[in-house]
Amino acid sequence: MAPSGIITLITDFGTLDPYVGIIKGVILGLNKEAKIVDITHEVPPGDVFEAAIILKDASSHFPRGTVHVVVVDPGVGTSRRPLALVTDGFFFVAPDNGLLWPLALETRLATFIHLNKAEFFRHPISNTFHGRDVFAPVAAHLSLGIDPFEMGHPITDPVKLKLPFPKQEANVLKGQIIRIDRFGNLITNIDESSLSKFLTGEDCSISVGPFRIHGISSAYGNVRIGEELAIIGSSGLLEISINRGRACDRIGTREKIIGLPVTIERDIEKVS
Amino acid sequence: MAPSGIITLITDFGTLDPYVGIIKGVILGLNKEAKIVDITHEVPPGDVFEAAIILKDASSHFPRGTVHVVVVDPGVGTSRRPLALVTDGFFFVAPDNGLLWPLALETRLATFIHLNKAEFFRHPISNTFHGRDVFAPVAAHLSLGIDPFEMGHPITDPVKLKLPFPKQEANVLKGQIIRIDRFGNLITNIDESSLSKFLTGEDCSISVGPFRIHGISSAYGNVRIGEELAIIGSSGLLEISINRGRACDRIGTREKIIGLPVTIERDIEKVS
Amino acid sequence: MAPSGIITLITDFGTLDPYVGIIKGVILGLNKEAKIVDITHEVPPGDVFEAAIILKDASSHFPRGTVHVVVVDPGVGTSRRPLALVTDGFFFVAPDNGLLWPLALETRLATFIHLNKAEFFRHPISNTFHGRDVFAPVAAHLSLGIDPFEMGHPITDPVKLKLPFPKQEANVLKGQIIRIDRFGNLITNIDESSLSKFLTGEDCSISVGPFRIHGISSAYGNVRIGEELAIIGSSGLLEISINRGRACDRIGTREKIIGLPVTIERDIEKVS
Repeated sequence: MAPSGIITLITDFGTLDPYVGIIKGVILGLNKEAKIVDITHEVPPGDVFEAAIILKDASSHFPRGTVHVVVVDPGVGTSRRPLALVTDGFFFVAPDNGLLWPLALETRLATFIHLNKAEFFRHPISNTFHGRDVFAPVAAHLSLGIDPFEMGHPITDPVKLKLPFPKQEANVLKGQIIRIDRFGNLITNIDESSLSKFLTGEDCSISVGPFRIHGISSAYGNVRIGEELAIIGSSGLLEISINRGRACDRIGTREKIIGLPVTIERDIEKVS
Repeated sequence: MAPSGIITLITDFGTLDPYVGIIKGVILGLNKEAKIVDITHEVPPGDVFEAAIILKDASSHFPRGTVHVVVVDPGVGTSRRPLALVTDGFFFVAPDNGLLWPLALETRLATFIHLNKAEFFRHPISNTFHGRDVFAPVAAHLSLGIDPFEMGHPITDPVKLKLPFPKQEANVLKGQIIRIDRFGNLITNIDESSLSKFLTGEDCSISVGPFRIHGISSAYGNVRIGEELAIIGSSGLLEISINRGRACDRIGTREKIIGLPVTIERDIEKVS
Repeated sequence: MAPSGIITLITDFGTLDPYVGIIKGVILGLNKEAKIVDITHEVPPGDVFEAAIILKDASSHFPRGTVHVVVVDPGVGTSRRPLALVTDGFFFVAPDNGLLWPLALETRLATFIHLNKAEFFRHPISNTFHGRDVFAPVAAHLSLGIDPFEMGHPITDPVKLKLPFPKQEANVLKGQIIRIDRFGNLITNIDESSLSKFLTGEDCSISVGPFRIHGISSAYGNVRIGEELAIIGSSGLLEISINRGRACDRIGTREKIIGLPVTIERDIEKVS
């Protein structure tokens, strides 16, 4: 796979500190032609699950041969391994803490590589900033066309990430909220195809926290302003939203929302 | 007009979610050489007026042939039209909700195009993310030099935006606060030329909420630290500021500030 | 020194307003091939010291010939001079308020230039936005290879910045907290080389506000989750951190933390 010259970044570094800028400086020092694209730097600190979901959602929209770098790395400085993942479309670079697992699950051609050739790193290697010293230089080398198999050796035991999948129990489809976006939309783990397998044409009722919603809308504007709705969001997942409002504010803190059960019943089954 | 290869982005997507990164991925997938510049992604969700002011202020500073994309789109998924606007200097792409109206008002050569050729979109087209599926691909095509008139047909009835203009009543010039910037400066709708037409050399007194300010300053540092002043800001509009302080904090919430009346009296007219 | 074509930006403009985008538009209007990299725009408004530390930390990671622009400019519109600084590796552009002083201190080959040739500015020059009208065009010209000595004349009296240096008193090394990062880490002014000169092999005890820490850790994960540690951070400075927590939250507001004394004692000297 030829590199596209594009390198994307997902981190929990925020934009207050110079850390992201420093990573870009290191990349450009090795590949002045690299095109660097920020996906987000606002992953909650250390939140591997959130970063993994974002990576899975965003990465496929880039041209083939893009290098995706994810640095959410609470284990930096310990013995956790730095990894590359090569799929049939992309290169990924991240610490071995589960970040890359969802991608591996959905791609047949996926090889994990333990990056252990220090000549591809920046020296001296710090104990606190492998984004700069390990992942940025490896990404730059990948974007230049260096074979990832030269930078380490294949492994088959990457750290896995526990992923919540929707479950069908009798006539109920059960899922949960996995992410809140900037608009206060509640993104569930229920994907369009699970939903359409479950609902073979019927309408449905959705229960999430305080919300009881009938049917899936096709646009926010299909309900009145301030009214809740369920809609298939842009990443193909069911979302709970309020037209021109913030669904999350009706429930409470992030802690209360992430993991909140979502229950979908077929309307045809209802007795009352 | 030859494209400059530059595409700017104004959205209300924030930087928490991968949405902006995804838009960039789609653009780069169609035009790998596009230079993408973020203007802001922090437009308050759904605030068409704020986005329109920012676009008008920022767009003219870019090279001729730049494509400016604005995605503040509460009507996404409904029948609102996607538009392009071609002026004598720039291409603009946005939903038909008033975003482009202030630009059309100040340019003679301005043609609105209803983007209705689906072959220039990304498929399948979602109901919630036309930034990705409609506006990003159209912008990429424009940056490649594809004629905008191939992508839709001209219209003459774009949605208009109600714009507050300053009014002169007897010896008083009346305007309002239209924006608060990051420094807490209060930006009015009173432009330099209206002001100099009103004040033919005299000094003036300005009243806004709790502030009574005499005269227009030429620099923040012209008044003491913590003191209020009126100054012509960088976009040619009168601003109310506090030297090294935040004028907005002396009034209250954003809701109280936006729309707040600004009154300017000529000092020569004062009786007391 | 040949320019790298890279221009970095450090400002206190935030990302809410179009100001940073406008600076990029002006740069690209003069040098369409410029590669512009954001370091941060979240410097607290007017905080020259914080910007100077960030610049010193970040700038060296970029390729030789990079132009670093810093716009934290509370004196904009007054008689404060616009400066360039040329070192043996980089070009710097900033207002004359101390921002560039730490760099000059650590580089022998450093020449300050008072930028006073208005033909290299954008006109008309506003009183409030020299980032757009002075610093952006100068940076673009530098990135194109124009000799900085053509844009002004050398000076030897730039405004200095008062920098806190660590002091050794008898058997105690005294410093202070100079920055809080996004993870809540407390960054001190005690650099690795001062520390290793002071500690010739012994262990040490560190006191900062409520923290009493024994020894320097080599990774966050070396202590239990929620426990405090001292570690040499990525910029070579001693940092006080909490493993997967926020050290700053144990002390209080930013005002209480910046300047807080840090005391290091050699363990071998302890009597009790």
